[in-house]
Amino acid sequence: MPKRIQILIIGNNTNGCTVEHTKIAYETGSEVAKAGHVLITGGLGGVMEAASHGAQDSNGFTIGIIPQGDATMANQYCDVVIPTGMGLTRDFLNALSADGVIIIGGGSGTLSEICASYMHNKPIVAIRNMGGVTAQFIDKFVDHRENIKIIGVDTPKQAVDKILELITS
Amino acid sequence: MPKRIQILIIGNNTNGCTVEHTKIAYETGSEVAKAGHVLITGGLGGVMEAASHGAQDSNGFTIGIIPQGDATMANQYCDVVIPTGMGLTRDFLNALSADGVIIIGGGSGTLSEICASYMHNKPIVAIRNMGGVTAQFIDKFVDHRENIKIIGVDTPKQAVDKILELITS
Amino acid sequence: MPKRIQILIIGNNTNGCTVEHTKIAYETGSEVAKAGHVLITGGLGGVMEAASHGAQDSNGFTIGIIPQGDATMANQYCDVVIPTGMGLTRDFLNALSADGVIIIGGGSGTLSEICASYMHNKPIVAIRNMGGVTAQFIDKFVDHRENIKIIGVDTPKQAVDKILELITS
Amino acid sequence: MPKRIQILIIGNNTNGCTVEHTKIAYETGSEVAKAGHVLITGGLGGVMEAASHGAQDSNGFTIGIIPQGDATMANQYCDVVIPTGMGLTRDFLNALSADGVIIIGGGSGTLSEICASYMHNKPIVAIRNMGGVTAQFIDKFVDHRENIKIIGVDTPKQAVDKILELITS
Repeated sequence: MPKRIQILIIGNNTNGCTVEHTKIAYETGSEVAKAGHVLITGGLGGVMEAASHGAQDSNGFTIGIIPQGDATMANQYCDVVIPTGMGLTRDFLNALSADGVIIIGGGSGTLSEICASYMHNKPIVAIRNMGGVTAQFIDKFVDHRENIKIIGVDTPKQAVDKILELITS
Repeated sequence: MPKRIQILIIGNNTNGCTVEHTKIAYETGSEVAKAGHVLITGGLGGVMEAASHGAQDSNGFTIGIIPQGDATMANQYCDVVIPTGMGLTRDFLNALSADGVIIIGGGSGTLSEICASYMHNKPIVAIRNMGGVTAQFIDKFVDHRENIKIIGVDTPKQAVDKILELITS
Repeated sequence: MPKRIQILIIGNNTNGCTVEHTKIAYETGSEVAKAGHVLITGGLGGVMEAASHGAQDSNGFTIGIIPQGDATMANQYCDVVIPTGMGLTRDFLNALSADGVIIIGGGSGTLSEICASYMHNKPIVAIRNMGGVTAQFIDKFVDHRENIKIIGVDTPKQAVDKILELITS
Repeated sequence: MPKRIQILIIGNNTNGCTVEHTKIAYETGSEVAKAGHVLITGGLGGVMEAASHGAQDSNGFTIGIIPQGDATMANQYCDVVIPTGMGLTRDFLNALSADGVIIIGGGSGTLSEICASYMHNKPIVAIRNMGGVTAQFIDKFVDHRENIKIIGVDTPKQAVDKILELITS
C-alpha cells in the first residue's frame, strides 16, 4: 500500500496563539482527518497542538516532528513522534515531509518553514486574517520563481479542499 | 491520546538481504503490527521493505525515514514517509525515533544505527544467526557503559516480546 | 587560543547575482578578511563565491558549508569545506555557525537563513539597495521579538564595522 | 585557492581518555599541523581537545564540529567552531568533512564515526594499542565492502604520513 497524503499545518506556537488561532487550527486538523489524510506538525504547542487535537478527535493520524531528541517533549495529541534532536533545524524536515502545507498565522519559525516548503516546490495554502509576519506573503510569490504562489483561503474546509486540489493536480 | 510505541527494525539493505533475512524481517514486522505498535524503518529495500510489508499485511502502521528528500524513493509499504534529505545521516533519526530497536543482520549502516541507539539509551534486541558485522555484538555491550546490552533472541515473536518488556520495564 | 570571530555572508546565488552584487560581495568578503575575521558562506555560487574570492584575495580564511556531501561541489575559494549532505537544510547550520550575519540581496534561501539567524539571536546587518525579497525586512524586525532588528548599511566597510560592533556589544 | 586537506581525528572523549591517549592525540594533532593540513575534530574534550591543542601549538588551523548549537561549548583550541545543534548526529558531519580519518581508541561514538566514514569511502588509519571497542576493527574491513580497510599504524607521524598517502593515491 503506497503512502498516504501528508498535510503539514504550521503557524503560531504557544506565544501568540490566540483563542481564534486555536479554534481555526483545531478545525483544520479535523478537516485533514475527515479527508483521510495524515497530519504532520512540529509537535509542540499553539497551532501545532490544536491541529493535532482536532485531527485525533476526528479519528485522524498525527505525527509530530520535534526539535528535541526526547519524544516526551511532544504535545499529547501525536500518534507518532519523530524526535529529531536537531533543534529548530527540524523546520526543514517538516517541509520535506509535506505533500502540501497549510499556514495559520505565524512568525519567524513559520516563515522559515514557508521558505523551505517553497524551495522544495510544495503547494502552500494560507488561511486569511490570522495575522503574523506570514500574512504579507498571502496571494504572493515568495521570490522570483513564480511557479509557487501562497494561495489565500477563508476557512479550514477551503484550506483542505484547496491543498488537496493542488497536491493532486 | 499519547503517542504509540514505536519499534525500529534495522538490518541488511538490498545488498546481502537473503531469502531468510526477508522471511524473518517480514515476520518481525508482522509481529510488531499484531502487538499494536508502529513500525519505523529506514524506508528503503531489503530488511526495511520486508518488515514494512509484513506489518502492512497485518494491518499495522509503517513509517519510513529515508535518506532522500523525495518521498517517492521509499518502498511501497510505508504508510508515511519522512524524506529527510540528509543522506545516511538519517541513521541517527531512525535511532532517535525508536522506543526500542530490533536488529536482523546488517553491515556498517546497521552498525551506525546500533551505535546511535546505544548512545541514546534505547533498548536493543537482535535476532540470532542473521550474520553480518553486527553479529559480534549480540549478548555484549557496545562499549564500556554496561547499562545497555544487545539481547539475543531466536524468533521474531521473541524479539517483539522482549523489546516490549525492555521498553516498559 | 579561543575561536576567531566568524562572519556569515548570505545573498543571491548564481541566479540573480548581478555584476553589482558580485562587486559588493567581493568587497564585503575582503573587508571581513582585512578585519581578521573568518568568513563563512554557503560555499556555492553568486554572492557566496564572490565573497569568498574577495576574502582569499585579502589573505582571509574562508569556510563553505555546502548542501552536498561531496566537497568538490564547493566553489574554488573555500579554504575549508563542510559538506553536510543535508541539502538546503544546511541553511540552518550556516546561521548557527555565525557570530554575525551580513545580507546582500537574496531570495527564499537567504530569507530562510535570516529566519534561522533571527531565531538564534544572531546580529544581522543588510547592505541596502541590493533588491530581492529580503529588502522588505531591512530596518525592521522579522517578527514580534524586538530584540533583533536587521540593520541597514550602505557599504561593505560599514557592514563589517557594524556587525563587529553588534557582536562585541 | 582550492580547499586544503582536512584530517579528522576521532577517539576517546573525556571519559576514558588516559594520559597516554592525551599524549598521542596531542602529537597527532601536531603532526597534522606540521604537514600543513587542517585539523577537524568533534570540538569537545579528550582526544578532540588534545589533538586541537597540539595542532594549535604547531601553528595549525583547527575546526571543531560540535553537537551543541552554542559555540562556547567547544574546547578552547578550536580556531573555528561549527555549532550544529544536531546533538550526536553531528558524528556524520565530522565524517563527511574529512578527507581522511585517524582513530585514537574510542567507544560507541567513535565507532559511529568510523561507520559513517566507511560508508562515505573515506580513508581510515588507526593508531594501535589505544584500546576501546574500535581496536577490533584495526587491519580489518568494517563490513563486506573490501575497498576500505582500517590501516593500523604505530605512531602519530606514521598515522599522518599514511593518511596523506591514502588521500592522494
